[in-house]
Amino acid sequence: MGPQDAASDTPTPVFFLAGGTGISAETLGNLLLAQFPGLNFTRRKIPFITSVEKAAEVMAEIDAAMTDSVTPLAFSTVSDDPIRQVLQGTQAAFIDLFGSHLDTVERILHVNATHSAAALHGVGDTLRYDRRMKAIEFAMEHDDGASLRNLAQSDLILVAPSRCGKTPTSMYLALQHGLKVANYPLVPEDFDTGDLPRPIAQRADKCFGLLSTPARLSQVRGERRPGSTYATLAQCSFELRRAEAMYRAHRIPSINSAKMSVEEMAAVIMQSSRLPDLA
Amino acid sequence: MGPQDAASDTPTPVFFLAGGTGISAETLGNLLLAQFPGLNFTRRKIPFITSVEKAAEVMAEIDAAMTDSVTPLAFSTVSDDPIRQVLQGTQAAFIDLFGSHLDTVERILHVNATHSAAALHGVGDTLRYDRRMKAIEFAMEHDDGASLRNLAQSDLILVAPSRCGKTPTSMYLALQHGLKVANYPLVPEDFDTGDLPRPIAQRADKCFGLLSTPARLSQVRGERRPGSTYATLAQCSFELRRAEAMYRAHRIPSINSAKMSVEEMAAVIMQSSRLPDLA
Repeated sequence: MGPQDAASDTPTPVFFLAGGTGISAETLGNLLLAQFPGLNFTRRKIPFITSVEKAAEVMAEIDAAMTDSVTPLAFSTVSDDPIRQVLQGTQAAFIDLFGSHLDTVERILHVNATHSAAALHGVGDTLRYDRRMKAIEFAMEHDDGASLRNLAQSDLILVAPSRCGKTPTSMYLALQHGLKVANYPLVPEDFDTGDLPRPIAQRADKCFGLLSTPARLSQVRGERRPGSTYATLAQCSFELRRAEAMYRAHRIPSINSAKMSVEEMAAVIMQSSRLPDLA
Repeated sequence: MGPQDAASDTPTPVFFLAGGTGISAETLGNLLLAQFPGLNFTRRKIPFITSVEKAAEVMAEIDAAMTDSVTPLAFSTVSDDPIRQVLQGTQAAFIDLFGSHLDTVERILHVNATHSAAALHGVGDTLRYDRRMKAIEFAMEHDDGASLRNLAQSDLILVAPSRCGKTPTSMYLALQHGLKVANYPLVPEDFDTGDLPRPIAQRADKCFGLLSTPARLSQVRGERRPGSTYATLAQCSFELRRAEAMYRAHRIPSINSAKMSVEEMAAVIMQSSRLPDLA
């Protein structure tokens, strides 16, 4: 088989359609597209398709992207029946990530689905919002060892040398999972003995360590302080070696952040530390 | 039709299976389950299923949840063929959110899929990580008007009275979309005239306003400072009215955060302000 438009590199237009934010349409659609590494795509996300009028507009936009040689792909998680029916009228390829599985779930559960836009919003969302907000505030207050108050209240303490990814990982865990995450920076003085630094010495059970590679850490530090001792390969290598030994000695689980996304780090940490999803 | 186990409220075990973090398996699976509001489910996410050995363990765990009256549901986004084949051997309902659409995409693109775990990680991820990290640092530095430096570099300035959701929304936009978001708190003194506060007066084009309902705002403020004037319904109502008038006068788009999730606010703001996804 050859690609859609073998004569040129014309990209295939891809649409992600959703009644809500479009996060799962986009994530799952991109997972499918990643199976076709040689091809080019242009991507457009259209969230909040909540009326048949809007759906008709969207359908017209997708159809306008059709050419003799290129069929657009439209990945949809729209759950409202009348709106889905309008979108299914497109001449493009409509990939119904939602509807195609609903029959299966109905069959297994022996219950009819409501076939309406999901009522995901209720009083529970306010609680969830409050939990996430408090978790974010906790993370900001306890960023980079800024506050050692309330460490006892934290669900997790991320420990690492400077620039190994503590802050984005803390924020992600707070925002996506409602977890109270403090983070504690290991500075060179912390390696004078093999002991854990005093503020976290009694809390090793809550600690999780981050590591990186010397090359990656040196690069990240160099962007912040170009030409500094702090950013040299030798210094980065020393701190990482000592941090790793410290984690091992105190049975603190750890991961190397150099080749992981924030999402992956968060998922690994939650699995390893058996943290509940509070959001 | 009646539910699986009409005699009791036995919840149906639900598994979210993925080769990666499991975010889309979970989001899309929950969207499907939301169509069955009367039923109970127990949920378990199993991410990073990256070997056939791990897949066999997972399959055994799912099968162990089968009973005479209850069939578990397993939503999967696993993309690696040999691993999927193992998981498909389960006696439970295997809902293949990925594989069931791959044929369609192959047919439209006239190209065979690689049928392997997607190679999502490359040099692009390091750039993405750096952009997100810088955006988070920017958001922290510019939180609650903490710094007015570099406002010119921001992609967006969120403006609102205290406790309308500026901080979590800024963090979400930074983390998920790599956007540099400053936020500026409107305090009662800012309403003495109808003018925009000086630091943002020349930047109305970058501003986006948040609002809430007086009841919700009063509740959130009351948790922070119980019994304060700041938290009274009258004060909240006054500030919200004035903020709304200010947004209108200066053509600043706005949304009411009272009934929206952070994800929804972020998606609406990006759509309204035509912000690109930089992550």
